[in-house]
Amino acid sequence: CVYTVNVQAQHPNLVITSEDVRAMREAVTQSGGFAEAFQELVSQVEGLMSQPIQVPTPQDGGGGYSHERHKKNYQLMYNAAVLYQLTENTAYAKFVADMLLQYAAMYPDLPLHPKRKMNFQNPGKLYWQSLNEAMWLVYTIQAYDMIAASLEPADKASIIQKLLRPMALFLSEGQPSTFDKVHNHGTWATAAVGMTGYVLGEAEWVEKALYGLDKSGKSGFLKQLDELFSPQGYYNEGPYYQRFALLPFITFAQAINNNQPHRDIFKHRDEVLLKAIDTTIQLSYNGLFFPINDAIKSKGIETIELVHGVTLAYSLTGDTGYLDIAQKQGQIVLTGAGLKVAQALEANSATHYQFKSVAFGDGADGKQGALVVMRNADANHPGANNGSAVLFKPAAQGLGHGHFDKLTWQFYHKGAEIVSDYGAARFLNVEAKYGGRYLPENTSYAKQTVAHNTLVVDETSHFNGELAKANRHHPTLELFATNHSGSVVSAQIDSAYAGVNLERTMALLEITGQANPLVLDIFNVSSDSPRQLDLPVHYLGQLISSNFKRHANTTQLSPLGNANGYQHLWLKAQGKPYKGLAKVTLLNDNGSFYTLSTLTKGDEQFLFTQIGANDPDFNLRNEQAVIRRVEGAKQHTFVSVFEPHGDYNPSKEYTLNASSQLSAIEYETRGDLLLVQLVLNGTSYLIAIDKLKRAEGVETAFKFKNQSYSLSGPLAVYLMTNDLE
Amino acid sequence: CVYTVNVQAQHPNLVITSEDVRAMREAVTQSGGFAEAFQELVSQVEGLMSQPIQVPTPQDGGGGYSHERHKKNYQLMYNAAVLYQLTENTAYAKFVADMLLQYAAMYPDLPLHPKRKMNFQNPGKLYWQSLNEAMWLVYTIQAYDMIAASLEPADKASIIQKLLRPMALFLSEGQPSTFDKVHNHGTWATAAVGMTGYVLGEAEWVEKALYGLDKSGKSGFLKQLDELFSPQGYYNEGPYYQRFALLPFITFAQAINNNQPHRDIFKHRDEVLLKAIDTTIQLSYNGLFFPINDAIKSKGIETIELVHGVTLAYSLTGDTGYLDIAQKQGQIVLTGAGLKVAQALEANSATHYQFKSVAFGDGADGKQGALVVMRNADANHPGANNGSAVLFKPAAQGLGHGHFDKLTWQFYHKGAEIVSDYGAARFLNVEAKYGGRYLPENTSYAKQTVAHNTLVVDETSHFNGELAKANRHHPTLELFATNHSGSVVSAQIDSAYAGVNLERTMALLEITGQANPLVLDIFNVSSDSPRQLDLPVHYLGQLISSNFKRHANTTQLSPLGNANGYQHLWLKAQGKPYKGLAKVTLLNDNGSFYTLSTLTKGDEQFLFTQIGANDPDFNLRNEQAVIRRVEGAKQHTFVSVFEPHGDYNPSKEYTLNASSQLSAIEYETRGDLLLVQLVLNGTSYLIAIDKLKRAEGVETAFKFKNQSYSLSGPLAVYLMTNDLE
Ligand SMILES: [Zn+2]
Ligand SMILES: [Zn+2]
Repeated sequence: CVYTVNVQAQHPNLVITSEDVRAMREAVTQSGGFAEAFQELVSQVEGLMSQPIQVPTPQDGGGGYSHERHKKNYQLMYNAAVLYQLTENTAYAKFVADMLLQYAAMYPDLPLHPKRKMNFQNPGKLYWQSLNEAMWLVYTIQAYDMIAASLEPADKASIIQKLLRPMALFLSEGQPSTFDKVHNHGTWATAAVGMTGYVLGEAEWVEKALYGLDKSGKSGFLKQLDELFSPQGYYNEGPYYQRFALLPFITFAQAINNNQPHRDIFKHRDEVLLKAIDTTIQLSYNGLFFPINDAIKSKGIETIELVHGVTLAYSLTGDTGYLDIAQKQGQIVLTGAGLKVAQALEANSATHYQFKSVAFGDGADGKQGALVVMRNADANHPGANNGSAVLFKPAAQGLGHGHFDKLTWQFYHKGAEIVSDYGAARFLNVEAKYGGRYLPENTSYAKQTVAHNTLVVDETSHFNGELAKANRHHPTLELFATNHSGSVVSAQIDSAYAGVNLERTMALLEITGQANPLVLDIFNVSSDSPRQLDLPVHYLGQLISSNFKRHANTTQLSPLGNANGYQHLWLKAQGKPYKGLAKVTLLNDNGSFYTLSTLTKGDEQFLFTQIGANDPDFNLRNEQAVIRRVEGAKQHTFVSVFEPHGDYNPSKEYTLNASSQLSAIEYETRGDLLLVQLVLNGTSYLIAIDKLKRAEGVETAFKFKNQSYSLSGPLAVYLMTNDLE
Repeated sequence: CVYTVNVQAQHPNLVITSEDVRAMREAVTQSGGFAEAFQELVSQVEGLMSQPIQVPTPQDGGGGYSHERHKKNYQLMYNAAVLYQLTENTAYAKFVADMLLQYAAMYPDLPLHPKRKMNFQNPGKLYWQSLNEAMWLVYTIQAYDMIAASLEPADKASIIQKLLRPMALFLSEGQPSTFDKVHNHGTWATAAVGMTGYVLGEAEWVEKALYGLDKSGKSGFLKQLDELFSPQGYYNEGPYYQRFALLPFITFAQAINNNQPHRDIFKHRDEVLLKAIDTTIQLSYNGLFFPINDAIKSKGIETIELVHGVTLAYSLTGDTGYLDIAQKQGQIVLTGAGLKVAQALEANSATHYQFKSVAFGDGADGKQGALVVMRNADANHPGANNGSAVLFKPAAQGLGHGHFDKLTWQFYHKGAEIVSDYGAARFLNVEAKYGGRYLPENTSYAKQTVAHNTLVVDETSHFNGELAKANRHHPTLELFATNHSGSVVSAQIDSAYAGVNLERTMALLEITGQANPLVLDIFNVSSDSPRQLDLPVHYLGQLISSNFKRHANTTQLSPLGNANGYQHLWLKAQGKPYKGLAKVTLLNDNGSFYTLSTLTKGDEQFLFTQIGANDPDFNLRNEQAVIRRVEGAKQHTFVSVFEPHGDYNPSKEYTLNASSQLSAIEYETRGDLLLVQLVLNGTSYLIAIDKLKRAEGVETAFKFKNQSYSLSGPLAVYLMTNDLE
């Protein structure tokens, strides 16, 4: 062991340090956001402290009384301890001490929790699973650290010997499989034990927390930092789970930094923790996380975990763009870092946070596919609500919360989700909806491929819906580039279906003179045998029109299929457009129109569906999709453009550009070169995409319709001046 | 004729006076909202003036080129003339003069418009109908009035003789049936002719505008003021049409007041015009108008007509509550009154506008039923988004835009519409949707009774859907009262169905200790023969649960019926709860739960429907309803409570009170006394409603469950202390 733990440091010294406390005591006497947050906490805590302390015998599972009570207790101890530091009012310290002593009286004799899952290696004593126990200790050790100086020696000894030490040992030596797991649950355990090590001066515990029980570095917190995020800071269950996973990392890392600054923990792996915080922000639109995998749609940057993350990111970097996010979060945390944020906000130091186009590599090496965000240049204009954004998902499965949605995409515009992902089928904590847990329809619909905007072969989901198989494979990111013409991405996967290769190229194109960027989508499928190919676009909005005849089922509805999610889709109408450009126009509540223009040879059927069949409990939202279907095909390329246009303003009584401006698409490939001609409002544009990933600046010459072009880099948009020759 | 017109007045002197102009010229040199609005208008008008003047030969109908061009021209002339007054830059005056001269060159030889409706009495010359021509003159005479002083005498004579005089004569003597019509179209005509009379010194024209062509007072502007609004200022097509109808009234009234202040036009009929403006505001929730009749749902207080209305109301009354509305409108008009609003807003003089519980009498005498708004006391707390509101509609039909919805209701809470009205089936100005006109489904669904939250007998609409019959009848308002316990209303109608009496009593109850007011609904139907009775509740939200078994149609959907709107409802599920309290719980996107609790004897079937059947063009929104149905009944009383509760916050991961607090309803009548016992969270409350309309303070003694009560006034809520005896 190279380092020693400095037990002579002034306490508290975990997330909040004694130096922080001096500044914080000063700040709560002034006016401002920090003092307001303090006052709010005072009245909340005073209210709770007026009730008798309750430390019930552990008996209930998640959601039950003893479970919830022990959760509330650690939050209350933490908050009261913060108030003790800020006010020096011993009533707060005494309250924490009294509760700790009650826990100390109970803990040594506790058996494993009666509601533990049998045959699992993760039982707790206070809770049915040790994850909650580790969380309890992460908060409680901080509370203890803040009030320890006020304790009578006998009480202190009792709390240490009967509660903190046994629990830390139970969570480490007592549960090696959890403690040494390179998994988010392991992070809570290492954070709890390591922080307790710092406070109790147990250098050995800190070493084990950082490097694993055997101190080899094959597990432990640093290994978790190395493996659970990709080099760009992406966590492979998606942003909804990423913001949750962040909390033990940023908590323990701050404790490490305050106790052992020479470890330079925030510099570890090229500042991966900071990248993880920033990535979580980047993976949001108009304040909400992109709802991939089992995400609850209303979660976003306001979640408390990300409030802590942004607070830390600002205090470490001084990057004033984080203040913009902090302002939108509207919540100040009562820590030293929180004080810096509050003061900077009051000094009006916030600058506009920059959302970017990025391919976030997936997996520990960043090479297991990627999650790709493409945004237009306008995305960062104040008031743009993040402009236009495409989320494209050639990512790995994302473990048990992953959906079978390889190469799916979503589109966001004018503050709203337009091309949508269902997210999770769940009403969080609503007892009447399956106890608030994931609904059966999460598996039967939301996870299935047809619930996504990607290709379904023969009405079966990717990897046949088998998780183990899905976890073993991932798409390959072939190309990602962004320049002044927009952004382009290409990816492929040949393992989602045996004998079938899926390859998708998408671009968010910024065309001079066009009010909105266009999304170009080229989905190429090749198979070793004839298949049925379905490519859905799920949308939020009202169907306005199609330029081809639809046959509607007006007096009777039936489900589109009988398994793999199809059983939940009512077939409302269908149509088979002739050769040419098939158009479907929608209107979203945001007042914009959207037209999906598909270049078809007359072989694509368009199915118009609504979610809701086989849903006896009304668990699903009744959203719409249009599905393009080709039957008996060994090869097919779906070529389409998704075009935002116009403005529907019934309040001001005007409607502008309700019709698509796109009148023609031509498409051809020349080896690695994709060429697409678009006619917009009578003007022709040529889009060239070079999939060979030539670097910017390397010129490729080619001819198109008798004109010579020189392509420099992977993407260009040309104004065609002479295409009538 | 008692009065003479003062032609010596300084010009301009219609809506904007020369005195206004002095203050406005000063204001545009300062900073502030008025100067900003001015600068915006400058850049808009400069842009338009840089293009050549176009005065095309009239040939197109509404929406066509010549129609739209002539509309834009009058707006541009008006705006340029305002800028001439504000800047004294003669380029603006010259532009207006040039355009007026082009009109003067064309107008005398114009035949009736080629696109006029044959066999109608309302053709125009510039436009297919004279309504638009009257609008043109209302704006243009103001523009002329503002630039007249700058004209060469010859030009002036030409404009007067060839354009203004002939048009005013065409719109009065030339079209007696429109000019003398007591109808909104007539108001535009009288305003145009009267204002032209003031400017040209034609006292006779003013007299005719005010009292009709024969000057008898049986028609004309004053008669329109007397008949088109009820004494409380309600316009019987509803608020969506009221804000539109307001504009010619407030425009002409200001011109009258400036030219003939002795007429005291704003005092006319107990200040009915001010009442009409205020009523339009009162008939909104969270900024949007209650969408009764053929209303477009996104219209609200921000509409330009109401901006003018609120501006006038503030300048006349100095009531700073109007500034609150003006602030929300966010638009400053460039008039003297607009300047007063801008200055008062900058002085932070705005106070909270008070929304009230009111029964707005319908019809010219205010006795043809009423439109009733009940709001809770919280409705006016800042940030409450208007709190809770019930709209109840025992109103007259409202002419051709009326829906067959006698005694329907709606409920609003936490900023959102919960118990909903479909509004109009129309995509305003969206060509692809039936040319932007009312869709066929407006008649086949939106107007029908089943599309509303009121009683349908034998699957037919009120008055059998016949407008002429509907216009002849109206409900009777039996009771309306509001006190500290809430508000109560009762109304009945026996003409909607032959042989059937419908009587509904509703209350918005404020119960001490309850977070939200409850809606009590007692709908009593009695018929001379057995009938099928359907009572729908259309809601916006997701069904969470019912406390009775539902049989869902999971693999096939069929329409509920085949006519009168029923053909558009898919039957998704049905259930027949046992005797007792039948509950259906919903969750709205606003995060609140709502439970409809119905006291049933086991004879009510609950049908769960979704709009969308027989809608081949996807014209309808796919909203949900629950319909209570009783078959073969001669008498039935539907007794229910609609209860907002709880809070669903997946972002902060908590869900509170997802279950209804109401565990029992008992109901009895004793003559005119309705007694309802509610058990909420274990506590019993007695609601007493005395339909005899005893005045507040008159005591009625009664006993209930061995306790004595004394009712003072029409509504009381008692805490029951001893109901176990
Ligand atoms: Zn998904
Ligand atoms: Zn209606």
